[in-house]
Amino acid sequence: MTAYDPNNPFAKILRGEFPCVKVYENDHVLAFLDIMPRVPGHTLVIPKAPARNLLDITEEDYLHVGRAVRTISRAAKTAFAADGITVQQFNEHAGGQMVFHLHVHIMPRHNGDSLLPPASRKEDPKVLEDNAAKLIAALKG
Amino acid sequence: MTAYDPNNPFAKILRGEFPCVKVYENDHVLAFLDIMPRVPGHTLVIPKAPARNLLDITEEDYLHVGRAVRTISRAAKTAFAADGITVQQFNEHAGGQMVFHLHVHIMPRHNGDSLLPPASRKEDPKVLEDNAAKLIAALKG
Repeated sequence: MTAYDPNNPFAKILRGEFPCVKVYENDHVLAFLDIMPRVPGHTLVIPKAPARNLLDITEEDYLHVGRAVRTISRAAKTAFAADGITVQQFNEHAGGQMVFHLHVHIMPRHNGDSLLPPASRKEDPKVLEDNAAKLIAALKG
Repeated sequence: MTAYDPNNPFAKILRGEFPCVKVYENDHVLAFLDIMPRVPGHTLVIPKAPARNLLDITEEDYLHVGRAVRTISRAAKTAFAADGITVQQFNEHAGGQMVFHLHVHIMPRHNGDSLLPPASRKEDPKVLEDNAAKLIAALKG
């Protein structure tokens, strides 16, 4: 297993060196919108602990991520009037992982939609801000 | 949200009315091989609690599933000499769900492989038994 690289983009987001469109944060996790969403409202949940993926994260840190995934998935269903939610989590290159800090994808789905290919189109920042506001409101509701 | 249907196939597996190729069980979860694997070793983790998906499961039951997903993913990497692991969890038809009892897909991946389309080919029972034996051995190791 390759060691955790503290210069990955999500580590930089956690240190405030890269910006993100934040939707949720607690002592253990951060959630923000994917800047290349596969569907509108595509959200990422990451642990604050330096874990490469599911193969090296501690159980405690993974469960903190799990709590947030459940909470945010429910809020996303409301925020985007979604018909369903697709959750994906990729481990290592072979498993589909592209950024090597554990992250869970939460993708609000609508009947008949389809997912864009991963990392295929950078979203307009204004759209991301609008979607974040919807999700934050649903999380507060 | 549609109510939980106690006659879904995974509920029948939990009641012993349908068979399964079991790899792991505790008081809260059951894990077994997908009979239509998208890759060899494709495993499903389900809660014993009657939850339709992530949108109705209790936090406690979801965290029990999370613990098992982490444990089994690590064992699957060893058991199948996998290069990576893909984890997916689908909610409602629009989210990709086909059986309406919460389940998490754990798919061992190898560099250059690709996932078969969902539910496209029924595996030889002997192959499933062999893969279960490998995974059970890794879980014990």
